[in-house]
Amino acid sequence: MIFCDIGNTYFHFYDTKSIWKVAPENLDKKFLTSQVYYISVCKEHEQKLLKLQHHARNIAEYIEIDTLYVGMGIDRKAACLSIFDGVVVDAGSAITIDVMHEGMHLGGCILPGLFAYMHGYASISPVLKKSFNFNLNLDDLPQNTQDAISFGVFKSLKGIIESMAKNKKIFFTGGDGKFLSKFFKNSIYDEMLIFRGMEKTFKDICSKEIK
Amino acid sequence: MIFCDIGNTYFHFYDTKSIWKVAPENLDKKFLTSQVYYISVCKEHEQKLLKLQHHARNIAEYIEIDTLYVGMGIDRKAACLSIFDGVVVDAGSAITIDVMHEGMHLGGCILPGLFAYMHGYASISPVLKKSFNFNLNLDDLPQNTQDAISFGVFKSLKGIIESMAKNKKIFFTGGDGKFLSKFFKNSIYDEMLIFRGMEKTFKDICSKEIK
Repeated sequence: MIFCDIGNTYFHFYDTKSIWKVAPENLDKKFLTSQVYYISVCKEHEQKLLKLQHHARNIAEYIEIDTLYVGMGIDRKAACLSIFDGVVVDAGSAITIDVMHEGMHLGGCILPGLFAYMHGYASISPVLKKSFNFNLNLDDLPQNTQDAISFGVFKSLKGIIESMAKNKKIFFTGGDGKFLSKFFKNSIYDEMLIFRGMEKTFKDICSKEIK
Repeated sequence: MIFCDIGNTYFHFYDTKSIWKVAPENLDKKFLTSQVYYISVCKEHEQKLLKLQHHARNIAEYIEIDTLYVGMGIDRKAACLSIFDGVVVDAGSAITIDVMHEGMHLGGCILPGLFAYMHGYASISPVLKKSFNFNLNLDDLPQNTQDAISFGVFKSLKGIIESMAKNKKIFFTGGDGKFLSKFFKNSIYDEMLIFRGMEKTFKDICSKEIK
């Protein structure tokens, strides 16, 4: 059994022992050695998977979360399902921040992912086409362009996450989750968050329908 | 006499009576009825102006600010020069936030402008290609995609501006400055900020060199 979380940039896999990711152009049958249960936020990539494994099964319909939010991405739902109380920050292509309170999803917001921020800066002017300074100290005011854009992104993300989390524990996941988690004391980085939600759902329904 | 602030998106003009902006494709001799004194952050647009008025004069070299910041845009310098103490937020193609303390520039940061944020979101997924909800209440957690991206941008901008301003007065300028200023009590919107800095510089040097 293999779980697959199909994102806008990567295919993320979990075979209950290890996790790995594959870029769409590198997706190959060799990664699909057993039955795949997946969720997807990208139709094009989903089709790519289904071409290689026709019987791969989308388990989105079983992932249900108590929320008033309309149009919540299935990956966000899965990540939120994995915790009972706290804030979930999934820092991938986009950065989603969701508040869970006693099993209920209270709402959430979306920011560009770090790569999309860089894309945004580059679209303004070649002067702003810079990489980030990941060693920046957020207590010092920036004195050059690279630090100025790094500070702008990291400090604004830190602020909004803090304001939404209040005293709740913060669970980071996604490619840039580990980096962002270092700005917070009451945080946990868990690259498995979405798969934990998928696995939980799978176990719940296992005895009912999926054989 | 006409002052011109050449940005990445528009030509901004000020003739000491009124201000107006012109998109690069619409720049025409009819706007240049007297001697132009300009600053520019876009070489391509600067050349466009110089083709129409060969004797237009770049006054960048006269705009000096007390700072350790390396590579500060000339428009930021001009805007900061116009105030003695406070925080300057110029919300145009990019959003710059600069801290002035007793005539000295302490540092600043850069965020994407609202349009560049939208560009960033759209680059992630068609699902995130949305316009902003400008009537959003930042006290309520978002319950749909449009509110989630609007909240992400506005709340994170509000947070970083607040954290940099502390108790200082906040001076907003630029196309989206008026909208952003509404989130702050201790704020002023002044569309003239850059021109005030240019005018101040011009007056300072008038008697010396520029005739």
